[in-house]
Amino acid sequence: MPPRLTLRVDLGPRQSIGPGKMRLLDAVAETGSISSAGRALGMSYRRAWMLIDDLNSSFRRKVVSTTLGGREGGGAKLTPFGQELVKRYRAIEANATKATRSHVAFLARSMRSAGASAAKRTRLSR
Amino acid sequence: MPPRLTLRVDLGPRQSIGPGKMRLLDAVAETGSISSAGRALGMSYRRAWMLIDDLNSSFRRKVVSTTLGGREGGGAKLTPFGQELVKRYRAIEANATKATRSHVAFLARSMRSAGASAAKRTRLSR
Repeated sequence: MPPRLTLRVDLGPRQSIGPGKMRLLDAVAETGSISSAGRALGMSYRRAWMLIDDLNSSFRRKVVSTTLGGREGGGAKLTPFGQELVKRYRAIEANATKATRSHVAFLARSMRSAGASAAKRTRLSR
Repeated sequence: MPPRLTLRVDLGPRQSIGPGKMRLLDAVAETGSISSAGRALGMSYRRAWMLIDDLNSSFRRKVVSTTLGGREGGGAKLTPFGQELVKRYRAIEANATKATRSHVAFLARSMRSAGASAAKRTRLSR
């Protein structure tokens, strides 16, 4: 497993975006509904709905738009701003990963790997 | 509150470093003991000890060294590698923050501020 960064952007006292909300937005874009998106991520409809309501009320523009009715209880999709939000978050991940590469590589090299520990035990037991 | 990044570096399947462990290491450096460090962060001794044991076993070199004995049950301090680890994590935070500034500023500008919502409500109610 290569080392990787996980990022949360705190924007206000109770307002943040991070990998969970971004995965949920990706799933809404893919499935076209909040309930399907929640289900795809093993999340209750209530939890998915609350996260999206939280996003919609955090920003000046809506992130997800919903339509009522239909057999599945209506559809949902990302607004243009919602698409921009996901794009910006992915850019933040990419830029942060690139800018921190040498330090993260140092940490990865400093790890005790499973192989290294086994070799050490072998040497010690001879 | 200015926007800010919170970072976790995943180094292996169950090995990561993030703000919690780094705060604990800072507190060990300041207080000279694991129990005092835990207490300063509102954490049980057991929890603090487990986090440090986890760090010590994740890397090739020890992060915290302990001495037995004394009234307080021994002391603890960061090893040179532990100091380097904290320095590298702080550098990762600083570099990531700098590299993502424009995108994070965009997100901050897109927020619905408390003031803006109040103004909107006032306008609507007239």
